[in-house]
Formats: sequence, C-alpha cells, structure tokens
Amino acid sequence: MYQENEFTKWYLKTIQDAELMDYTPVRGCITFRPDGYEIWEHIQAAMDQRFKETGHRNAYFPMLIPESFFQKEKEHIEGFAPELPWVTEAAGEPLEERLALRPTSETMIGHLYAKWVNSYRDLPLLLNQWANVFRWEKKTLPFIRTSEFLWQEGHTAHENEEEARHETMQMLAIYKEVVENILAIPVYGGTKTESERFAGAVDTFSIEAMMRDGKAVQAGTSHYLGTKFAEAFDIKYLNRNNEHTHVHTTSWGTSTRLIGSVIMVHGDDKGLVLPPKIAPTQVVLIPVGPFKKHPEIVAKLEQLQKDLKAKGIRVRLDDTDQTAGFKFNKWEQKGAALRIELGPRDYENQQAIVKARDEDDKQTVNLEQLVTVVEEELAHMQQRLLTKARQFRDANAHVTIDSLAQLQQHIEASKAAGTIPGWVLAGWCGSADCEKKVKEETKFTTRNIPFQPPVQKSTCICCEQEAQHTVWFARAY
Amino acid sequence: MYQENEFTKWYLKTIQDAELMDYTPVRGCITFRPDGYEIWEHIQAAMDQRFKETGHRNAYFPMLIPESFFQKEKEHIEGFAPELPWVTEAAGEPLEERLALRPTSETMIGHLYAKWVNSYRDLPLLLNQWANVFRWEKKTLPFIRTSEFLWQEGHTAHENEEEARHETMQMLAIYKEVVENILAIPVYGGTKTESERFAGAVDTFSIEAMMRDGKAVQAGTSHYLGTKFAEAFDIKYLNRNNEHTHVHTTSWGTSTRLIGSVIMVHGDDKGLVLPPKIAPTQVVLIPVGPFKKHPEIVAKLEQLQKDLKAKGIRVRLDDTDQTAGFKFNKWEQKGAALRIELGPRDYENQQAIVKARDEDDKQTVNLEQLVTVVEEELAHMQQRLLTKARQFRDANAHVTIDSLAQLQQHIEASKAAGTIPGWVLAGWCGSADCEKKVKEETKFTTRNIPFQPPVQKSTCICCEQEAQHTVWFARAY
Repeated sequence: MYQENEFTKWYLKTIQDAELMDYTPVRGCITFRPDGYEIWEHIQAAMDQRFKETGHRNAYFPMLIPESFFQKEKEHIEGFAPELPWVTEAAGEPLEERLALRPTSETMIGHLYAKWVNSYRDLPLLLNQWANVFRWEKKTLPFIRTSEFLWQEGHTAHENEEEARHETMQMLAIYKEVVENILAIPVYGGTKTESERFAGAVDTFSIEAMMRDGKAVQAGTSHYLGTKFAEAFDIKYLNRNNEHTHVHTTSWGTSTRLIGSVIMVHGDDKGLVLPPKIAPTQVVLIPVGPFKKHPEIVAKLEQLQKDLKAKGIRVRLDDTDQTAGFKFNKWEQKGAALRIELGPRDYENQQAIVKARDEDDKQTVNLEQLVTVVEEELAHMQQRLLTKARQFRDANAHVTIDSLAQLQQHIEASKAAGTIPGWVLAGWCGSADCEKKVKEETKFTTRNIPFQPPVQKSTCICCEQEAQHTVWFARAY
Repeated sequence: MYQENEFTKWYLKTIQDAELMDYTPVRGCITFRPDGYEIWEHIQAAMDQRFKETGHRNAYFPMLIPESFFQKEKEHIEGFAPELPWVTEAAGEPLEERLALRPTSETMIGHLYAKWVNSYRDLPLLLNQWANVFRWEKKTLPFIRTSEFLWQEGHTAHENEEEARHETMQMLAIYKEVVENILAIPVYGGTKTESERFAGAVDTFSIEAMMRDGKAVQAGTSHYLGTKFAEAFDIKYLNRNNEHTHVHTTSWGTSTRLIGSVIMVHGDDKGLVLPPKIAPTQVVLIPVGPFKKHPEIVAKLEQLQKDLKAKGIRVRLDDTDQTAGFKFNKWEQKGAALRIELGPRDYENQQAIVKARDEDDKQTVNLEQLVTVVEEELAHMQQRLLTKARQFRDANAHVTIDSLAQLQQHIEASKAAGTIPGWVLAGWCGSADCEKKVKEETKFTTRNIPFQPPVQKSTCICCEQEAQHTVWFARAY
C-alpha cells in the first residue's frame, strides 16, 4: 500500500471509482466530474470568504498573455518558458505576436497595476482571481499536476516592504487555517530555499503537507515579490512625501491540487475518506432489509432527508434497486461521511444505525435524536481526521537523522521493511551544492525552512559544517 | 443620447468611469475590475442556486479541444471555425494536432458523455460548467462582445425528446426569471428562426432584451440539440426495452454580456444605475458639512454600517477627504443604489437624508428607522427599475408596422426626430429570403418568435403573403 507504485495505483483507482475525474484526449488535461468539482467548490467558498473578510476583492484578467510581457522579468520567463502553450493563429490568420496561455498572471496584472496605481491613496490594492491556468508538464498526475488546472491567484500592491511582507504572511496563515480546519490536513509553514523559490520572487513561503506515502505536497504558496515586478512593469506611485516610488507586490496561490492532497491524506483501501466540511455527501440514507414491502421506511428516510437538508446538511437518499451491500461499497468508495441504515426491525424500534466512514463501529440511535447525533458526528469526524493525519505526519517526520549516510540507511531500511521514509528534519549549511547533492543521492528535496521546527539542528546533513537553517527534506509531488 | 454613436460613447465612458473594466493589449480581451466582476458574482450566485435547485451539478471540462472533435458535427464546425484561436505549439514543440480554445463545449462534453452514459439509469445527466470561452470576433464591445468572455454552459442528456424539450424550456424559464427579478430587465422568450439558430441545434430559444438605444440583446439561449451531437459522438444507452438508443441532448448558456445589458438598460447621464440585488454598493454612507469637527458623525455612520452589514446589506462608508459633491458624483457614477447623508444639523435632529439613485427626491429619515427604511427602499427601487424598463420597452416595441415600406418610413422618421426605432412586431411568411431582405434594407433582424406576442400578425412584413409566424424584428448587438 505505501510503496510508491502501489500508492499511485491506489490513488488512480480511487479517484476513478469515486467518479471524481476522467481522462480526456488532451494531453495532461482532466475533466472534473461533479463530485470532484464540488470538493473544489467547498474549498473555494472557504477561501473566498476569508479573502473578502481581509479586504480582498475578486477580478478577472485575460487568459492570453503577449510574449513580450514575459520578457520583461528575466527570472520569470526563465522559470515558465519551458512549460508554456502558445496561441499562434486565430480566426484563420497567423497572429503578429504569440500569446501564451497564462501559467500565472503577474505580468498581465503588473501591466494593469501600472495604470491603476498613481497615488498612495490607491494602495494597498488587494485583488484575487479565480481562474484556469496552464503549465505543459512532462509528467502529470490527476489533480496533483495537470496541464490545465484551476486555482486562485492573489495579487497585491503596497506602499512598502513591511506592509507587503505582512500581507504575504497573512495569506499564508489563511491557507494554513483553511487546509487544517476545512481539509483536516496538518501543515508546516515555512520559507522556501532559493532553488525552490517562485520565478521572480524575493521570498517564497509555503505550507507543506504529508501524503500517506510519506511524500510532501506543497499545498499553498505566498510570495513577497519586492519591487521586481514593479520595476519590470513600471508600477510607480506618488508617495506621502510626493516622490515617485515603486510599489512592493505580493502574490499567493492555491489550486485544485488540494483535491488530490485531501484524497492522498485521508483515503483508505475502501476508497475516499473526506472531511465532512468538504464532502459532497455528508450523509447517505440507505434503506436495508425488505424495505420495498415497508413503504413507511422510505417515507421516514425522505422525512429525515428534509430535516437534515433544513439544517444545511448535504444528504442523499439511495433508494435504488441495488442491494444494501452494493450501496455500502459505493458510498464508501465515494467518501460519504456518515451512513444511516434503516430497516423494518429498526423502524419498529424507532431507531436507525449510524456509521462514520472513518470508524469500524456502528451506533444505534433513536430516530428522534438522529438529526442532533448527525450534527455532532460530523463535527467529531472532522476533528478525528485532523488528529489522525497529525499523528501520522508526526510519526513519519523524523528528527534524528543528521548525516547523508544516516538518511541513506533510513531510506534503505524503510524500503526493506515496506514502510515509508517520510520526512526528515535536518540542518543545512545554506549552500546550493549541499542541497543538490542530497537531492541527487536520495531524491529528497528541501520542502521548507519551518517557522516552528520541532527541534533546531546545528550541523548540515550533507557537509556536516555548521547549519544555517533547520529544513524539512522529503520526496515531493 | 439615443443616437447610435452617442449611445456607444456614453456606454464606453460610463463603464470606464465606474471602473467596471479596462482594456488590455490583447485584441478584444478586457479585464473585469472588482465592481464589474462583483456584478457577475451576484448573477452567478442567483443562477447557480436555481441550477442546483433543479437538480444540476457543476463540473469542469478541458478548455482545449482537439481539431478533430469539431469535424464530427458538420454544422457546428461551420458555425464556429471562423472565430477559433488555435494552440499550435507547447513547451517548445509543435503539437501533432491543433487545439482550439473552446468557443463552447458540446464536442468535448459529447465525447465524455459517450463514456458516462450506458443505461437509462444514468439519465438524465444534468451538468453545468462555469468557464471562460473564446470567440475571436472582428468587432468587439466590452462585456457585450469580447474575444474572451465568462459564461455558464449547461449540458444535459435525456432518454427522449419530450424530456429534453422540457429541460430546454425549464432552463429558458429560469433565465427569464433571473433576468427579470434580479437584473430588472424585462424579456421576451421565444424561438429563434433557422438563420439565427445555434450551430448544430434542432431548435434554439432565446430571451431578448431591449437596450435604451432600442437595440436588442440576446440575454440567454437554450438549445434542443435532438440526437445530432449524440450521433456525432456516439452517445448511446440501453433503454428500458433493452435497446441501444441515442440520447437527446440540450445546452443552454448565459454570459458576462448580461453585465453590459444591465448597464445599457438602466444607466443614465450620471453613470450606472444598478438594480440593488446586483449592485456592489447597495448603500453608501457620506458624512456632509464640517463633519471633521464632529467625530460623533463618522462614529454614528460606522455604527450604521455595522447595523446594515448585519442585515446582509452591502454598504460602504466614504469618509475620505474629498468634498461631499465629489463623493455624490463618484457614487452616482458607480451606481450605489442608496446614498445616506449625515451632517451636524441632521445629527442634532437625529435624522439622515436618504436618496435613491434612480429618483430625484431625497427623504429625511429618523435615525432609529433608518435600517428598516433602507431595506424597504432597496426593495422598492428593484421593483421600480423593472417597471420603468418594461414601460420603456413597451413604448418602443411597435406592433402596427406591417410592410417593409412602413418599416423604412418608421426608421427614417425616428432618425429625423432623434428618437429610437425600437423593435417591430411583424408577420413573417417563414422564408429565409424575406428575412434576408428585411435585414439588408433596414438592418433589422429577426430576434425571436415570441411565445406570447402582444398581438398576432397575419401577413408577412416583406412579401405581404400569409404570415406563418409573428416575429420581433430589431437591430441587435
């Protein structure tokens, strides 16, 4: 299960069985089926609410970006050029200038901010965009890495570094809160090393999550861009001292790879396990036994469905012809958070069976108590999933490996035992050479320099000289 | 004001002054600034809620569509080929097959529905997508006709014609209800003539709205596609008699051109007039007089802002340094629905001035009554705008013109008087030649064959033979 190929096989089977996505004939582009898209809708709603509460507004920028725009910020074009798809003709004629499908919108937005920002009165400018973006990747994996994906990208402009850095950290904190409280995925916030930085950023910060195969997913990033894009696109304003000054900008993003992450963190052999807050089906009602002979059973379940809906709970009644066993399997595959069974005997006793997707035990609940119990159980399950994911993460985040030899031994030992190597917290001298050597010899890359590492490290895992940073190393998606 | 060029000038100035949009260097692609995008967010929310209430779910399909997909439905490619932008290279290499930026998604969705639909148990399949689409138009106008625009496209598959036609009409009815009740724009629902039909549809139905220059905007369309796309993409299912049968499909869409429509229907010389239900600013609070000397005024407005927010009202307080006159202008331009003024004298008397954007009179309201009055006034204004737009539409929808000569006279007379020619309800024999002749001689095209025409016509406006249909003719965007 935890071995690399096995896990990928499990993941691909799980998302297809659960009807979250389908492949398409366009290389690396998937279709988000309703249950997959609905998970995204719940993530969107949670993020969007918090963005608006912190003063951001949504806007929409063109998807096509002129080639010349990319040339304006040197690091940016170097980072993104290898992955760009290009529109070269339209309406039967070749274009004068190639247009890229946006991989991110710093350049187009930089161009427009230069028009909109004139005075300190126009600042801060706090915008966000929900959009599709394109990165023509060589190796793709549904949700986690696709040629087209959906995301949000925040872009803000500020009077000075302090305010811009405050914004960068505020948005990272919002990401952490949503990912932990809504997706039930514990994350470490920290600083990316230079080699892993966003193309054109002064500093990139990330939140990093551990999947059940021990690999890391970068679940969100927030960038302090300094004045780099302001200089490239000439975004200047008249400051409070009547001087023309460049703004300081930030950008920050999360994407549909969060859907992949939530599956890889919580799923099990039976299929999806979804935190109730984002589960398309929070409760499935299933009549059991010879229920067709007892119309009062489906009638009762219909009533219950209404009562739960009235509480804002996402509930489905499965009164199709299939067997109860078939339905149990199906809704486990699809990650329904709670299952409620009602058969003739239960009905007689005015009770139902309640089972949470993540627990083995069932409980018997009086019908009158059912709505209350459902609300409680959904809250408990949300909490349990976070706790369980945190325990798993902490158990597989190793903090006592201090040399490359130890790391290699650890990896070999895991392989032999059929366990996962997980993450390793290690010291790092700060040199790109050491970072590269660790990567080449172990495939472990620097995830981030955590703001709050469990322990501080004093020597570099590679050169064993004095450590400048304590870093999470891991294999990553 | 109503003359064609004047109206376009007014429109372009109004949307820029109100900061709804900005131009970009990409041909025909605009940026939706926050106030423009927020109008779309409110339209989306209203539509999305109704789609879900009627059993539809959202999904997301790839934006790039292989060229070969378009070739499968002959009328479809003929209709869309002239407007397609093409991706021909990606990640530094030419593609084997060109990929179109979607102008609409029937083809990609047809391909996937063929995989997903196997049995009558899989039907109806009721999906919707919120997405960006591309039509490389020669002549563009912000919001109304742009190379990239945002829309929703519903795509459904059904067991038979009856159910598919029912769906087609149900969705048109939802569009009509939203456009009338949320956007305060009265529309005529009806059937499109063959020449105006969606490329590949058996029947296209539309709702048509009259702008203040008398031109028509097609505000939403719903198509019964018969089995055309099912045949092209081989979407078959095992029916209740165990036979392999083609599904009947529908598609239906509304787009960001609704933003343009709402501006062209309600706006005035001072700027935007927005129905409260979609106004980004429903209430603006403005301190007047020497309010800086009286901190209790801004304190009171802040309290009021909290009270209104608690009622779910979108309210802004403008306590910037500008003069009250400057602020009045600004918020009239931006279409704030209600303005509340509070000065020292008002404060002393525990009252405020309330002014609705669409009325000349102000009213004095006791501060204790203010929240209640605001709620009532917003509801009244919403209703007034619909009534006013309906009166305007009816006054300019002419039903007594029965020949081409009369129509030409009417157009000439309007021009001479500086009034608008509006719409003309006329009989039509059903021949494409007559339709074409009317268009060539007057630029009036068939808008739709209304389900409920104000009167029935008996002779064709062109050939004066027996009429088969009673049709709205108008110049259109």
